[in-house]
Amino acid sequence: MSRWSSAARTAVERCRLLAGYTEEPGRITRTYLSAPMKEVHALIAGWLTAAGCEVRIDAVGNLRATSCRADPLVRAGPPGPALPQPNQSQEPPERPTRSSAADQGVRPTFVIGSHLDTVPNAGAFDGILGVVLGVALLEDLAARALRYAIELIGFSEEEGVRYGVPFIGSRAVVGSLDADLISRIFGAIRDFGLDPARIPDAKLPANVFGYLEFHIEQGPVLEHLGMPLGVVDGIAGQSRLMLHFEGKANHAGTTPMALRHDALAGAAEWIGAVERVARGTPQLVATVGSITLGSGVDPGAGNVIAGSAHVSLDVRHTSDEVRQRGVRGILEAAEAIAKRRGLGLRTELSLDQSAVAMDADLTARLWRAATAEGLPAHSMTSGAGHDAMILAPHFPAAMLFVRSPGGISHHPDEAVNVEDVEAALACGSRFLADLECDYA
Amino acid sequence: MSRWSSAARTAVERCRLLAGYTEEPGRITRTYLSAPMKEVHALIAGWLTAAGCEVRIDAVGNLRATSCRADPLVRAGPPGPALPQPNQSQEPPERPTRSSAADQGVRPTFVIGSHLDTVPNAGAFDGILGVVLGVALLEDLAARALRYAIELIGFSEEEGVRYGVPFIGSRAVVGSLDADLISRIFGAIRDFGLDPARIPDAKLPANVFGYLEFHIEQGPVLEHLGMPLGVVDGIAGQSRLMLHFEGKANHAGTTPMALRHDALAGAAEWIGAVERVARGTPQLVATVGSITLGSGVDPGAGNVIAGSAHVSLDVRHTSDEVRQRGVRGILEAAEAIAKRRGLGLRTELSLDQSAVAMDADLTARLWRAATAEGLPAHSMTSGAGHDAMILAPHFPAAMLFVRSPGGISHHPDEAVNVEDVEAALACGSRFLADLECDYA
Repeated sequence: MSRWSSAARTAVERCRLLAGYTEEPGRITRTYLSAPMKEVHALIAGWLTAAGCEVRIDAVGNLRATSCRADPLVRAGPPGPALPQPNQSQEPPERPTRSSAADQGVRPTFVIGSHLDTVPNAGAFDGILGVVLGVALLEDLAARALRYAIELIGFSEEEGVRYGVPFIGSRAVVGSLDADLISRIFGAIRDFGLDPARIPDAKLPANVFGYLEFHIEQGPVLEHLGMPLGVVDGIAGQSRLMLHFEGKANHAGTTPMALRHDALAGAAEWIGAVERVARGTPQLVATVGSITLGSGVDPGAGNVIAGSAHVSLDVRHTSDEVRQRGVRGILEAAEAIAKRRGLGLRTELSLDQSAVAMDADLTARLWRAATAEGLPAHSMTSGAGHDAMILAPHFPAAMLFVRSPGGISHHPDEAVNVEDVEAALACGSRFLADLECDYA
Repeated sequence: MSRWSSAARTAVERCRLLAGYTEEPGRITRTYLSAPMKEVHALIAGWLTAAGCEVRIDAVGNLRATSCRADPLVRAGPPGPALPQPNQSQEPPERPTRSSAADQGVRPTFVIGSHLDTVPNAGAFDGILGVVLGVALLEDLAARALRYAIELIGFSEEEGVRYGVPFIGSRAVVGSLDADLISRIFGAIRDFGLDPARIPDAKLPANVFGYLEFHIEQGPVLEHLGMPLGVVDGIAGQSRLMLHFEGKANHAGTTPMALRHDALAGAAEWIGAVERVARGTPQLVATVGSITLGSGVDPGAGNVIAGSAHVSLDVRHTSDEVRQRGVRGILEAAEAIAKRRGLGLRTELSLDQSAVAMDADLTARLWRAATAEGLPAHSMTSGAGHDAMILAPHFPAAMLFVRSPGGISHHPDEAVNVEDVEAALACGSRFLADLECDYA
């Protein structure tokens, strides 16, 4: 039993407890500024307040907690007001006094963050585990003064479910929410009891010297390797496209094979090419996750040759150059297939997002911490987007992945091993201690 | 200008006119025993009555016309009652006296038939052209006595739209409607003003010595060959299956290519195998016309690896043995692909319909007629089902295809060339004359 085994069990229990706060009975669904989000805020704030932190909810609904115990500057201000409790009135909470703001002005601050929202019918760990691990580390540090401040952020929105736009929480703390989006979320912020005019106050000050995000891997790599932890070197860039193969709908019985212009057969051949390009390029992933047919006659009937096939393409890699070369190869294959089969082809690019590298120094520190704790870790790329991607252009950022059993995520079966959570806590604690030695 | 050019133009105009009788404004949709069907009956009956035929509507709604002019036996009975006119009362029509029934009892009868119903959003020629060509031939024969009787049948139902069961009209005339289906259509028959108790009277008598069906090809073969007519040697047998590939839904960004169980990628590879098997077997057609994905996570989202893929398979050939061998080869390919990719596979057979050969003598007579008229014709298999398929086990049956411009059918753009309709009439007329020499 490591010194973290109890904290790890508590962290897992807390994730399970928080999963009960959902918009949909029997499923875990907690979207941006939803009613259960207020209850989650209150529960987490309770744990953090008990650990001596000051907690506030910023104007976009991020939970912000600052370590302050044993720091004389913090004691200068009045204690923060109580946060709204579950099932209480919808009165806007009184804005906490910024005793920590003055503190942030003078002391370097390290941020730990992850998100509190979920996809529909989610698991219990995606996002929230990172916040709960931050709580555990702040609880562990509660008894002693730190030479730098820690701010824990539970981002209000990462998944993009409610407005179709992800990263609202993290974009607010780096000041990159655009006016259009703010106007769309304005009403929801007011309804949640917050003041949208204060969104600029959500921005992190310049004395933040780094960011760490714990997150479940959401993939099968660590399990496949038998390792508990992954040190993320970067977050893959992403291309998303739609391809439209246009053939000729015709009768399945009366049209000889040689006279067909079968849009589905063309798309199917191309899906094979997508696989070949991806398999032939180390670390490249390429996915056709959606296909719909329009036959022009009797759409999708088994006895009609498909007149058109509409397919999605999702390509990711940490190197933008490799990713774009992959996309070009895949599109060239589509053109060759369409030409040979006498099909029309139209492509639409809907996303071309650059890769984001994690900070080399912080990443090396994570490695050192894992090694010092004797924890096996794997250097890996995140294929999924995370809040760290939004923070990284502004602050040195690092991410630590926790193994996902079965590689399952965005699903009720999503899980973590308690031992892996222990490993993450041990690594994270060592990392923070190491930072204290070198900074401030 | 052949002697059939005027009749051919009239036939095309009549098809266009009848297309206006539809359940859906702006689209051609005329299903079994629908209101516009009654108007179509009245129009066609008017033409046939003018040509000296007796017309009745049998108890399943088939339009039945018997040539009788210049035949002394027919004159013995009273003339049939007037048929219901468009937009008149819904009173059940008085059942025509069977002056022709006695006639049928003594004279051999040759049947010309095709169907009056359409698919939703149909073209103007599928089915109805065959009836209208029968009308033209009876009009041409109106002035002279024949040594055999001709019965023209406009089948009330072939497409299977209203009850999901095709061939109701032709099954009634061969006496193969089952009790279950009759009970399902009972109310519709009554509502149309007919008496379901008289369904047994719809059965053709034993003195029928042959059946001819004119039909548009509904495929591109004759156009590809530059020929107006196709002499059908048989109607392909058909296998219909559903295949279910079961993989593992996973995140498109976090799951390396080597660790995927992508159901869509497996299905796509298999679609390629379906094409290869069909292309490698003369005359075999195999079609995957429908595919739906269920990811188990976020169905059909572009960023989720497909957890399952559900695909249809339609395989047709005139040789049942070749067809079944093709299906076996295709299923073996599916199993091999599923095994290699670690996918589950489940298959369901929904149809295994044997091929039907056309009558060799009647088919040879069609050939002789086409040759005598100097008309190029192609010997071909019908990949689509037709009423002739239902008649063939009971009576010698033949089919003549008319070229389909663009191979288009079951679509508003469905068309015929007037010259091809002329060719069909010339061939059909010569065929009937030839029959008169040899029979009776």
